[in-house]
Amino acid sequence: MGAYEELMAFQRVTEALAQVSGRLGWDQETVMPRGAARQRGEEMAAMEEVLHARRTDPRIGDWLAAIDEAALDDTARANLRLIRRSWERATRVPAALATEIARVTSLAQGIWAEARREDDFARFAPTLETVVRLKREEAAALADGGDLYDALLEDYEPETSAAEIAALFDAMRPRLVALRERILGLERTPPALSGHFDEAGQMQLSREMAEAFGYDFSRGRIDKAVHPFSSGSGDDVRITTRTVTHDPFNCIYSTIHEVGHAAYEQNIAPEHHLTPVGRGVSMGVHESQSRSYENQLGRSRAFTGWLYGRMRALWGDFGVADADASYAIVNRVVPGFIRTEADEVHYNLHIFLRFDLERALIAGRLEVADLPEAWNARFREDFGVAVDRPSHGVLQDVHWSVGLFGYFPTYALGNVYAGCLMAALRRDVPDLDAHLARGDTRPATAWMAEHLQRFGGLRTPRETIRHATGAEPSEAPLLDYLEAKFGELYGL
Amino acid sequence: MGAYEELMAFQRVTEALAQVSGRLGWDQETVMPRGAARQRGEEMAAMEEVLHARRTDPRIGDWLAAIDEAALDDTARANLRLIRRSWERATRVPAALATEIARVTSLAQGIWAEARREDDFARFAPTLETVVRLKREEAAALADGGDLYDALLEDYEPETSAAEIAALFDAMRPRLVALRERILGLERTPPALSGHFDEAGQMQLSREMAEAFGYDFSRGRIDKAVHPFSSGSGDDVRITTRTVTHDPFNCIYSTIHEVGHAAYEQNIAPEHHLTPVGRGVSMGVHESQSRSYENQLGRSRAFTGWLYGRMRALWGDFGVADADASYAIVNRVVPGFIRTEADEVHYNLHIFLRFDLERALIAGRLEVADLPEAWNARFREDFGVAVDRPSHGVLQDVHWSVGLFGYFPTYALGNVYAGCLMAALRRDVPDLDAHLARGDTRPATAWMAEHLQRFGGLRTPRETIRHATGAEPSEAPLLDYLEAKFGELYGL
Repeated sequence: MGAYEELMAFQRVTEALAQVSGRLGWDQETVMPRGAARQRGEEMAAMEEVLHARRTDPRIGDWLAAIDEAALDDTARANLRLIRRSWERATRVPAALATEIARVTSLAQGIWAEARREDDFARFAPTLETVVRLKREEAAALADGGDLYDALLEDYEPETSAAEIAALFDAMRPRLVALRERILGLERTPPALSGHFDEAGQMQLSREMAEAFGYDFSRGRIDKAVHPFSSGSGDDVRITTRTVTHDPFNCIYSTIHEVGHAAYEQNIAPEHHLTPVGRGVSMGVHESQSRSYENQLGRSRAFTGWLYGRMRALWGDFGVADADASYAIVNRVVPGFIRTEADEVHYNLHIFLRFDLERALIAGRLEVADLPEAWNARFREDFGVAVDRPSHGVLQDVHWSVGLFGYFPTYALGNVYAGCLMAALRRDVPDLDAHLARGDTRPATAWMAEHLQRFGGLRTPRETIRHATGAEPSEAPLLDYLEAKFGELYGL
Repeated sequence: MGAYEELMAFQRVTEALAQVSGRLGWDQETVMPRGAARQRGEEMAAMEEVLHARRTDPRIGDWLAAIDEAALDDTARANLRLIRRSWERATRVPAALATEIARVTSLAQGIWAEARREDDFARFAPTLETVVRLKREEAAALADGGDLYDALLEDYEPETSAAEIAALFDAMRPRLVALRERILGLERTPPALSGHFDEAGQMQLSREMAEAFGYDFSRGRIDKAVHPFSSGSGDDVRITTRTVTHDPFNCIYSTIHEVGHAAYEQNIAPEHHLTPVGRGVSMGVHESQSRSYENQLGRSRAFTGWLYGRMRALWGDFGVADADASYAIVNRVVPGFIRTEADEVHYNLHIFLRFDLERALIAGRLEVADLPEAWNARFREDFGVAVDRPSHGVLQDVHWSVGLFGYFPTYALGNVYAGCLMAALRRDVPDLDAHLARGDTRPATAWMAEHLQRFGGLRTPRETIRHATGAEPSEAPLLDYLEAKFGELYGL
């Protein structure tokens, strides 16, 4: 065996162990007995110890040095690039710091949850200060003299920079603010749903939607969880959803969103399974899949028309007059404090706010003590209303408590990428709506599999989008789409 | 930290990883998507690689050499004894041989299943020859000049010997054969169940029975599986059961059996969790728990009376006239080819047959080619009938295909131990039947937890029984119990 083959054999075992660790997370959120929590913490820590030892194994350095890269094909070079990045990052962070971050963030999540419940930022502030300090230290170790925030961003969206993202977001913000102001200026109360929708029916519809979007049940399953997620790669990619009695759309669109993530992982070419290339390339590209499945496809007029028929068949008259009314309900634009409940028009504004604040925190331009005020001021500016309590503002997201700095921008990047992909898809499949109106997503999902999903991490995130669409990623298609869709819906 | 503390910290991570590996097995048999099988194989192999590396880690040898055993308390000495045995065994087997055994047995299971389906021993024979050869090699590496079979037995029932077990079984066989001949000589057709019992009702009863026997659902769960099993230790001990439409007793007694295993693991004192002492001490002692819960308690006249009432409440008149008839049904003695369907009178005879044959195979006194004939001859001798096809005889059990030589005798040992334990329990709790007749197993399960379960692997298997009962293990209590119970039931 050559050095490359030896490295890949070693890496394959690491990838398999990472799958096991991920499945343990799935188990915890779906089927684990509640009394097992403490023991599970030790089991997860044991897996992390093993994985960390493998990711920093000195033999990786020897293999990397011994490999003649010129002799490799594209796939091998991509694997090598991903392994090298992972190894360099893992070895740069001192073990004591990594352990301290793991320890602090595992406690911080509980403290954050309590502070949110009590609506008391002061209770969380000292912990958040520690997390920010540790993440700055980690960033400094990773950055090697470069930008601290960029170093953290690399974990979620490699090969971009905060400056690039800031330029993108700055270009988007005025048009989004303008769009929301035009809609809200109408002072129209959007229609809403009322009634009771049985859980069994919702779960049945959830399975139907998953099938409609090409989720492969022979290599996955749907369960219920408090916060829906997708988990796993290759031949074992599981999703979760939730049910809310008065709002079946919550279950339906949670499912479609997670199917977008899962389809990406399921459709990566089998020869990449259990290799670094065999996973979605970045959080942004991942989110482009979940968001385009959920929004551009799932909330389209054509698809919601078909969905309305399925809901009528299941629940009879459920208080919504026709398909148009249903379309209006799933696309209602309402100002709200909570990111996860935001509509397509507001969503990115939530992200921009978080991105700017977390960047300032990591750069040291903003102190944790000043964070609530900065949040509230910015919220008033972009959303036109005052935050009424911390749990509706700075305390609403779990991310910072668990040290996820650099993660938020990938949500908006995903929307931007989704905009690019859908423009290309609609160009290539002009009669897409005719298919969607019959509940047939295959032309869309097949296009996504063929042009993007099957390649996994073969290319960088930007190259992945460029390869799929034939163009440089840009915010224009997303903004055009939003203005057209909501302009038509609201008669602007 | 001293050498003992360092060793135990290392071992604790290994124990946690073993729990993870076990949970992966649970996942595979209950919730895994069928298309994930191949990938799961790689994930399991990766966990095995990690566990094997830890179990043979040279540092364990250094720690063992450095520890001053005289300074340790009983628990620490027990942990040390268990770690030393595991380490010595793991390091004695050459890595290449261990890998080869894992490879061959994983293939052999599929070949065995096919041969059983086709009722064709010849199809399995060459593979079984290879497995026997490899297990003999492994035994030779482990035995260090001692008896080959004893070396294999040690994995399942440590600190006993085949000679000891043979003496025990030889003492049991005449009385068991005599008992079955007296019963079958009556030529009475025992009553049987007929009808249809809905799955939801069976699963509800299954949960009720688990609760009745003290299973802690906050640290466990029940799912369905093709072959019921119990899995995990400490705070995450899960059981599975199955349902057969025409026979709810299958589900009920599978559940109670697995609750016996699970209660043992759940009731080990928390301070032993994630240590070597924190697991059931041997397969034999484990089986003493599952068998006594299932048979001596669950199939007692007192308990079946209460169970009959629960079944009437659930299913109304289900074709069984009264509690006496129900008691007769769950204790019907019928000759049969299949071990797993055997009644209490026949069960041990099945084990003796396997024990003698596998001992002869490992000793080289019996060739695989001659195995079916040896099986059939012995079966005719002990059961009085001729085996009609290989799937009813030599091909019925999975054990040999996966290399489990030395496992079978622990089933009968478990029955013997259960006999000892129940005699002591009935001595200490004279009014046990009054409790069981109300569905209250607490005096029994509390006695078992107090006298046996909480200690885990603190003592050797024999010492564990001796400590619980105050007497040397012997076959007499089991045989007395069987003769009394079935003598009364059949009016002998």
